[in-house]
Amino acid sequence: MKLKSVGIKNIKLPVSIREKAGTLQETVASISLHADIPKHYRESCVSTFIAVLNKHQDDMSVNILAKLLAEVQDELQAEAAQLEMSFPYFIEKKAPVTLTASLMEYPCRFTGSVGKDEDFMLSVWVPVTTLCPCSKEISAGGAHNQRAEVNLNIKFSGFVWLEDLIDLVESAASSQVYALLKRPDEKYVTELAYENPMFVEDVVRRVAELAKKHEGIYWFSVSVESFESIHKHSAYAYVDSSEI
Amino acid sequence: MKLKSVGIKNIKLPVSIREKAGTLQETVASISLHADIPKHYRESCVSTFIAVLNKHQDDMSVNILAKLLAEVQDELQAEAAQLEMSFPYFIEKKAPVTLTASLMEYPCRFTGSVGKDEDFMLSVWVPVTTLCPCSKEISAGGAHNQRAEVNLNIKFSGFVWLEDLIDLVESAASSQVYALLKRPDEKYVTELAYENPMFVEDVVRRVAELAKKHEGIYWFSVSVESFESIHKHSAYAYVDSSEI
Amino acid sequence: MKLKSVGIKNIKLPVSIREKAGTLQETVASISLHADIPKHYRESCVSTFIAVLNKHQDDMSVNILAKLLAEVQDELQAEAAQLEMSFPYFIEKKAPVTLTASLMEYPCRFTGSVGKDEDFMLSVWVPVTTLCPCSKEISAGGAHNQRAEVNLNIKFSGFVWLEDLIDLVESAASSQVYALLKRPDEKYVTELAYENPMFVEDVVRRVAELAKKHEGIYWFSVSVESFESIHKHSAYAYVDSSEI
Amino acid sequence: MKLKSVGIKNIKLPVSIREKAGTLQETVASISLHADIPKHYRESCVSTFIAVLNKHQDDMSVNILAKLLAEVQDELQAEAAQLEMSFPYFIEKKAPVTLTASLMEYPCRFTGSVGKDEDFMLSVWVPVTTLCPCSKEISAGGAHNQRAEVNLNIKFSGFVWLEDLIDLVESAASSQVYALLKRPDEKYVTELAYENPMFVEDVVRRVAELAKKHEGIYWFSVSVESFESIHKHSAYAYVDSSEI
Repeated sequence: MKLKSVGIKNIKLPVSIREKAGTLQETVASISLHADIPKHYRESCVSTFIAVLNKHQDDMSVNILAKLLAEVQDELQAEAAQLEMSFPYFIEKKAPVTLTASLMEYPCRFTGSVGKDEDFMLSVWVPVTTLCPCSKEISAGGAHNQRAEVNLNIKFSGFVWLEDLIDLVESAASSQVYALLKRPDEKYVTELAYENPMFVEDVVRRVAELAKKHEGIYWFSVSVESFESIHKHSAYAYVDSSEI
Repeated sequence: MKLKSVGIKNIKLPVSIREKAGTLQETVASISLHADIPKHYRESCVSTFIAVLNKHQDDMSVNILAKLLAEVQDELQAEAAQLEMSFPYFIEKKAPVTLTASLMEYPCRFTGSVGKDEDFMLSVWVPVTTLCPCSKEISAGGAHNQRAEVNLNIKFSGFVWLEDLIDLVESAASSQVYALLKRPDEKYVTELAYENPMFVEDVVRRVAELAKKHEGIYWFSVSVESFESIHKHSAYAYVDSSEI
Repeated sequence: MKLKSVGIKNIKLPVSIREKAGTLQETVASISLHADIPKHYRESCVSTFIAVLNKHQDDMSVNILAKLLAEVQDELQAEAAQLEMSFPYFIEKKAPVTLTASLMEYPCRFTGSVGKDEDFMLSVWVPVTTLCPCSKEISAGGAHNQRAEVNLNIKFSGFVWLEDLIDLVESAASSQVYALLKRPDEKYVTELAYENPMFVEDVVRRVAELAKKHEGIYWFSVSVESFESIHKHSAYAYVDSSEI
Repeated sequence: MKLKSVGIKNIKLPVSIREKAGTLQETVASISLHADIPKHYRESCVSTFIAVLNKHQDDMSVNILAKLLAEVQDELQAEAAQLEMSFPYFIEKKAPVTLTASLMEYPCRFTGSVGKDEDFMLSVWVPVTTLCPCSKEISAGGAHNQRAEVNLNIKFSGFVWLEDLIDLVESAASSQVYALLKRPDEKYVTELAYENPMFVEDVVRRVAELAKKHEGIYWFSVSVESFESIHKHSAYAYVDSSEI
């Protein structure tokens, strides 16, 4: 019986992620690294994983992932190697009216494999506001709204920046979410959401339309989980590019 | 040096909780049980913990907690014994207009200690809706609202049912949260919240006022965490009875 | 663009699970339920989900899952419907020497879909002990060992009980894990593990061999995560039946 | 009724932590910040929290915490202000025999309050190995051992580095935990643990003795949670300086 993979799971390391602006961002990643190894998995294999991670932790991007995995594969003479790397990513965001700047945190993930199933995937989790169309329509005043989380996963032919994926998602809901809003900003986002009611499936469809138009993306999946303000459970919708 | 306590943590067991209606509710608890033991902690001590838990798991209430802990203390000749027991508790709740019934789940906790610091505490976590007064006041239409979680912890002289604590909290926010709402119900809760804007500190104060009036309660603390629909972070407020 | 699915996520409900012994076990499940719906997802759809769940929560088994999903599909005229239901499952287990009985908790999951991709899956997470062969071989005394968690997912042609899946996994590691052990039992499991050193990939292979021999199982995947006692990270191995 | 505190919870920010070596370490913190405010909590208050955090995030140490809180208190004319800040902290650690270096991650926390209850606390969570004395004594070969987590919280009169607290804890268990060990190192830690059996309460006592001797520490609490390799639950022990 052939083993699919052996490796390490949930090792935390400081990493530097290449930003769209060209600079490097210092953050902390939780990493899993596996390989398809013909022989017994012993100490040498873990050492290789850790050594290769240490070598590249100062400048991580999707391009470097492929190189890192090729090194793992080469050193272990493995048929294949896979990495998964999750990290909080920070982007300075301006409030919509006062333009006050603040840092927003977005959970992100790189997933890659080299060998028989060569594959790279970028994932972002983006908080947005959803405002319920049904609640607005039937009510004399107000409408229930809530924070929702959009998860977009893509595979790409060209190069795609995390910044661009996050931008794409933020434009697709009832309103955006911020770390810091002053009163004129709060007025703006409240009114924008009220003018722009969307169910979870509306958000999913809108993100999917934008992802479909993006030249660099050849596969994607989108889900939205809305932490309903009038219910204890979440509303949920999902679509992937195979459905379109 | 004297040890404060040794014990077991995070053991999961099915338990039956005595309901206000007199019936028993089957649920699953995560339990930690500790004792202040003068001598070395060995196998016999864990056996005692597990044996005493097994004996009482079929009929749990705050009254039985004291008996259970006294047995632990007695068998281990311990100076003191403490138990913490967290479980989801289910209450059938009727929608406000159509009266459609559905089950709501509330995380609850019993905490007790016997010996030098005799003490019992009841805790409930109750989801509610908060609607922002500031957002309503400044906006042409709508107001941001969201799910919030109220945590109420009490110490009591008489007997207090979980059902009564949960009722107390649910009446104190912009609106209540339900598992199942039909259209007339959704209209009702949307409008109610819009008529009843509250900041997290308003909810905390209102719960505190109600807890203060309750005869059985001699100490309490309340906190509210609001999962802001326009921000990534939570708004938070806290008060305890020593402040009043 | 066609939506893949809309639904509800993370609703908690008390459920009764059919045991191998014929009796029913009361536990608490976290449930997600989705459907592929041609038109807009509104209140009626959630009501259907909740109503169908309420109807069947008193007697859950994999057989009933198919019926429940068919009802969802029928009522919503959906192309497909999916359910995921995770719950702690309790089995009385006897200590290996003294035969002292205690309740063990195993996280389990039912996953099912009806419609275009009809599919049912059973999942169990089973704690075991792994003892490192390398550490034993090179050391003058002792060997590092730790708790590990085996996750086995299966698809089946006949009927498979959770009890049988858990049994299958428990026999496959260095030693088993218990809720309550007396001294003769502790001696037994310590010596058994020391006589029976296994890497994570050894456990994965052994579980896979047993799953392969089981007549009712036509597909499976197994992973083992070992919470290494000498490392901060986990060791991990994975295999599925396509590799064999 | 007076409110105890209002604030923000769980905001993630990149921070730089001052290391013992004098250098700064880039990491990511999860921060809660509260103040006792006489009047209504509105936008201005959150802005102040975020602005003060942004100002100091580039050079955090326990000394700066006091300054940061004083600024919050001053700007909001608050009676008191509290901050809690949790972050992964990385230290290069050398394997015991081959001296191979690797990065270890330790969860840490700063907690501080200014105003009526001026107080600062440092917390570290340190993974260690525990090897059961009872299992060793009764067994023909081997002894069950496992990863355990020590949590040490201190209040201090002088200045105490995170590095020193972590060192103090790591010397107090059956053996230490590493990110990377080569074969001679694995032999060493296996044998060391086997020569050095300790129950959770032995580790708690040893850490307490060392904390008591440390001149800068005037209050502490220690707990140890051991993820038992033969049980599904954890063994647990706790002591604080009031017991000694």
